[in-house]
Amino acid sequence: MKKVAIIMGSDSDLPVVRPAWEELKKLGIPCEAHVMSAHRTPAQAAQFSASARENGFGVIIAAAGMAAHLAGAIAANTTLPVIGIPVKGGAMDGLDALLATVMMPSGIPVATVALNGAKNAAVLAAQMLAIEDPQLAETLNAARKKMAEEIAAKDAKLQQELV
Amino acid sequence: MKKVAIIMGSDSDLPVVRPAWEELKKLGIPCEAHVMSAHRTPAQAAQFSASARENGFGVIIAAAGMAAHLAGAIAANTTLPVIGIPVKGGAMDGLDALLATVMMPSGIPVATVALNGAKNAAVLAAQMLAIEDPQLAETLNAARKKMAEEIAAKDAKLQQELV
Amino acid sequence: MKKVAIIMGSDSDLPVVRPAWEELKKLGIPCEAHVMSAHRTPAQAAQFSASARENGFGVIIAAAGMAAHLAGAIAANTTLPVIGIPVKGGAMDGLDALLATVMMPSGIPVATVALNGAKNAAVLAAQMLAIEDPQLAETLNAARKKMAEEIAAKDAKLQQELV
Amino acid sequence: MKKVAIIMGSDSDLPVVRPAWEELKKLGIPCEAHVMSAHRTPAQAAQFSASARENGFGVIIAAAGMAAHLAGAIAANTTLPVIGIPVKGGAMDGLDALLATVMMPSGIPVATVALNGAKNAAVLAAQMLAIEDPQLAETLNAARKKMAEEIAAKDAKLQQELV
Amino acid sequence: MKKVAIIMGSDSDLPVVRPAWEELKKLGIPCEAHVMSAHRTPAQAAQFSASARENGFGVIIAAAGMAAHLAGAIAANTTLPVIGIPVKGGAMDGLDALLATVMMPSGIPVATVALNGAKNAAVLAAQMLAIEDPQLAETLNAARKKMAEEIAAKDAKLQQELV
Amino acid sequence: MKKVAIIMGSDSDLPVVRPAWEELKKLGIPCEAHVMSAHRTPAQAAQFSASARENGFGVIIAAAGMAAHLAGAIAANTTLPVIGIPVKGGAMDGLDALLATVMMPSGIPVATVALNGAKNAAVLAAQMLAIEDPQLAETLNAARKKMAEEIAAKDAKLQQELV
Amino acid sequence: MKKVAIIMGSDSDLPVVRPAWEELKKLGIPCEAHVMSAHRTPAQAAQFSASARENGFGVIIAAAGMAAHLAGAIAANTTLPVIGIPVKGGAMDGLDALLATVMMPSGIPVATVALNGAKNAAVLAAQMLAIEDPQLAETLNAARKKMAEEIAAKDAKLQQELV
Amino acid sequence: MKKVAIIMGSDSDLPVVRPAWEELKKLGIPCEAHVMSAHRTPAQAAQFSASARENGFGVIIAAAGMAAHLAGAIAANTTLPVIGIPVKGGAMDGLDALLATVMMPSGIPVATVALNGAKNAAVLAAQMLAIEDPQLAETLNAARKKMAEEIAAKDAKLQQELV
Repeated sequence: MKKVAIIMGSDSDLPVVRPAWEELKKLGIPCEAHVMSAHRTPAQAAQFSASARENGFGVIIAAAGMAAHLAGAIAANTTLPVIGIPVKGGAMDGLDALLATVMMPSGIPVATVALNGAKNAAVLAAQMLAIEDPQLAETLNAARKKMAEEIAAKDAKLQQELV
Repeated sequence: MKKVAIIMGSDSDLPVVRPAWEELKKLGIPCEAHVMSAHRTPAQAAQFSASARENGFGVIIAAAGMAAHLAGAIAANTTLPVIGIPVKGGAMDGLDALLATVMMPSGIPVATVALNGAKNAAVLAAQMLAIEDPQLAETLNAARKKMAEEIAAKDAKLQQELV
Repeated sequence: MKKVAIIMGSDSDLPVVRPAWEELKKLGIPCEAHVMSAHRTPAQAAQFSASARENGFGVIIAAAGMAAHLAGAIAANTTLPVIGIPVKGGAMDGLDALLATVMMPSGIPVATVALNGAKNAAVLAAQMLAIEDPQLAETLNAARKKMAEEIAAKDAKLQQELV
Repeated sequence: MKKVAIIMGSDSDLPVVRPAWEELKKLGIPCEAHVMSAHRTPAQAAQFSASARENGFGVIIAAAGMAAHLAGAIAANTTLPVIGIPVKGGAMDGLDALLATVMMPSGIPVATVALNGAKNAAVLAAQMLAIEDPQLAETLNAARKKMAEEIAAKDAKLQQELV
Repeated sequence: MKKVAIIMGSDSDLPVVRPAWEELKKLGIPCEAHVMSAHRTPAQAAQFSASARENGFGVIIAAAGMAAHLAGAIAANTTLPVIGIPVKGGAMDGLDALLATVMMPSGIPVATVALNGAKNAAVLAAQMLAIEDPQLAETLNAARKKMAEEIAAKDAKLQQELV
Repeated sequence: MKKVAIIMGSDSDLPVVRPAWEELKKLGIPCEAHVMSAHRTPAQAAQFSASARENGFGVIIAAAGMAAHLAGAIAANTTLPVIGIPVKGGAMDGLDALLATVMMPSGIPVATVALNGAKNAAVLAAQMLAIEDPQLAETLNAARKKMAEEIAAKDAKLQQELV
Repeated sequence: MKKVAIIMGSDSDLPVVRPAWEELKKLGIPCEAHVMSAHRTPAQAAQFSASARENGFGVIIAAAGMAAHLAGAIAANTTLPVIGIPVKGGAMDGLDALLATVMMPSGIPVATVALNGAKNAAVLAAQMLAIEDPQLAETLNAARKKMAEEIAAKDAKLQQELV
Repeated sequence: MKKVAIIMGSDSDLPVVRPAWEELKKLGIPCEAHVMSAHRTPAQAAQFSASARENGFGVIIAAAGMAAHLAGAIAANTTLPVIGIPVKGGAMDGLDALLATVMMPSGIPVATVALNGAKNAAVLAAQMLAIEDPQLAETLNAARKKMAEEIAAKDAKLQQELV
């Protein structure tokens, strides 16, 4: 199976990014995580992206805050699908990161998920890999069913609490 | 090759969505387009999504404006990757559509592209299909190279204009 | 009397929604509360809404945050009036939920109240039921009068505090 | 049947409000329209609202732009359900009107619809009146079905256009 | 000297409003404070405003949050200058209150100050009263000079701290 | 009677500002208009403000767009009441001008009116001058009454149009 | 004298950028203009920036819209001062470009000017070069004086128009 | 070497501004810090700016919040480059300060950095001074290299933590 790379702009983003790592592990998808910055280590980020496909990666997830260029900088150097996680920060409450991640110019898309949406980035990466992997698709369907059952259980519990 | 579905919430969205159709055709990717509404034909949208994988689709693109629920309503009924195009409209200038498309709850991602980013939605769908399709990956790489050459040509032309 | 349904997208929304439950109880209006998700249990939400009128409901209140599709997804499956409570959340501070709830397409309205406006959702539901119920209208009028008296009392108290 | 009142803050709002009038006429619901201003004729607005229920009204629709106080000023003087239409204007593009209409204090709800959502205001008023009127409910259900059929027809037409 | 009225929409706004009261006291300007609500006690608010000039008031200060109609509702019933203090609240962080206060229709101005700008509301009221009161103008000039001296003192202190 | 000064940051603001000039003329209030810039002629703006009271001015109106410092720069140099008109411009649609005008620091208020609210700035200036001028107060009351009658007339006309 | 580089992300930005070119020419500052894209020609942009200082440049101006990464991508590859011009575009009206340009991470500043502020970018570049160039400083001072005189002339003209 | 001035609008901004002071000290650049207010000590701010170049300053950094006029007021009185630090505050979360700082009129630029971006303001000042100072340029390049090495070290450390 192709690997998924998780790139974060700063090691301080690790708490936000960790749910992506854990979800991928849970789904049995091989992954690597790296700290690389579009602004502080531009050469490394470019090099990693340009060689990612030949190094066995299928999808790259990138997380950054503020003027969040990381996902775009990676997308500029590869034709692998790149998933962007805008990181909610103090200033502007993450709107800056969301817009900087999603408003990409024609020809260079970034698949943007919700602010701090690390788990969803992992699920989306898995969905991409599952296009040609029926077994992974089955795993995703099963997880979806389980999610629905949990909600039904919560609804049942609510009936006892609210009387 | 898996097919790509393009779903629009209203036929008035066709001018916004058409670049996706054209880009997919240009890349040789089989596709279908449909008008379906999360609010006006919820049953059809649910049914189409739930059976999309077994009907040979690999990716679904959904475009909608205002309280843009379409991509999310589709994602709720399939584990295929769903790409959302928020459509820029009169009221709120599209910010409402962007937020309604991207801020999905945990477990149900929508891969959001820029406002009116139909061409990029098609490129992103192609990138997903190319994960396991080296020939399509090659086509995408070639398009990327051509894009860079066009910009270099524009730069050369600029030198003659600005003297 | 017709019943009021209170639907929340997640059981974590209960603290926000509870004032609606309590206000309805106080007004003597029969109600039910459920956890159902537009994205995680779309089939249940559709089914509940489609059969709500014949099951004796007169109004449905729906509360959700972020890309708040719940009220719209319910409104898509019933012609009962649907009241949407956008839930104020961490990311975007609730503006996303407000826009996703209120900016509905033509033909499918959602009666939107303020962010976290659960008590007002209940009052609005009661006002709807009171259109043809003079006794309930009288109860609402009395509550309004009491509210005015409380403010007059607070004004009187202020005169003693601020000297 | 109870009447619906449509109040607009200025006669320049008539083009925005007219779809509400037409939808109510189409649904066979008796209605009246008035120009009244929360700021320029506060006494008239208060008086109209305070006597609306005894004058045979069941629902009041109010449309206003900018610091849109009209719906709130009406809601302050009646316990009938009040539907607010924020009017999209030049300055702030209607966000000011939306927030001024929807963010009501506890106890005095305004059922807010989308910016310029006059048709939906009428549909919502009809839904409220239909709670106790099975025939009107049937009319609304039929309109909903017709809307779905129109979309299916548009989808069929699209298949012929996009080849 | 004419009196200044301070009206707040809820007694919970008192901590925000208190600096206005204290500043007026400090400047020797007679004032009254009241709790009155545009939505919960509309009749009292209208009556107070309509008779304010004949009751010896020269300026009215009104503070409210969310869909902050209070200042506008008062301005609708008097031709005294009305100063609006938008109160910063949890939802929308006060932008709703600011827009609802300042975006008044033609003919009915509200002199809006900054979010929670109670002290400035008092200073502005004093500036209005000082137009025809040279002694009060002198007091205001002296306060301004003192403010400048305090900043010069802080600058001098900074030179010792930052070495 | 004290004079009113109207200051605009650029002569291109004249169309926006002209309604203030005309309203003041209509109300019989003496006024002067000047082009002065907080950024391009800071010395002149400071000098004019500092000597405005002794030169017979009672109120200063200032209009500016973008990073609208003009009203604040004037308020910094006088204790006369300063009314700020934020001018709606291309970029940011005037939100920048509104915030730059209204969010003044403690001690230096600017009485802010709506975006492009020149007529209201004049009315507000008149209201300030009328605090100690019963005749002007009477003029303002009469104008208010006339405004209400015009709306009543429009309402009557509407009854004939909408049948 | 050191040269100034003007980089634009697309040749369609030329009308926005041209005032920078013209201002620099007017001030007698040598300059070059190039089309280079952070996303479509990332290698060229990096290479140009990395060698800009040794190629005789003193300042780099970069203009881009939407998720405007260009200025940041250049700043990541040089320690020359980089001036960013956010370009106002259709979607989000330029707020996205402004935030993506200005909200840079610690260590890599971009000197951001107003939306479409090309002339100011050139003036700012000249101010930087003038720090050690008294003659250029004199030119800038003269231009500033002329600007003030033009405004005084407009004020004089206004006195004749507004009578 | 030319000096850098750091001006803050209030001594309460010192914690935000201090990183600029420390970065300049670390880079060996002579600097002075002052408390001066565009609104409370306008004459001092104007005088300081007007004489800054002859007093040996090369760059002025100004930090202010809310309707942040300080940087603009300084830029209005000098042709030295002025760097603006918008200070993130309670109300409007700093968006007001950002817009008030960056949206300057034609002819009077302010080089704006991120909200609370004091360290970057210092780096930008150093970059300006380094245009004609090869040794300072070398210091900046070395700091940049060190920053990249620190990120590489964090990446290496991450590999051991995430297994």
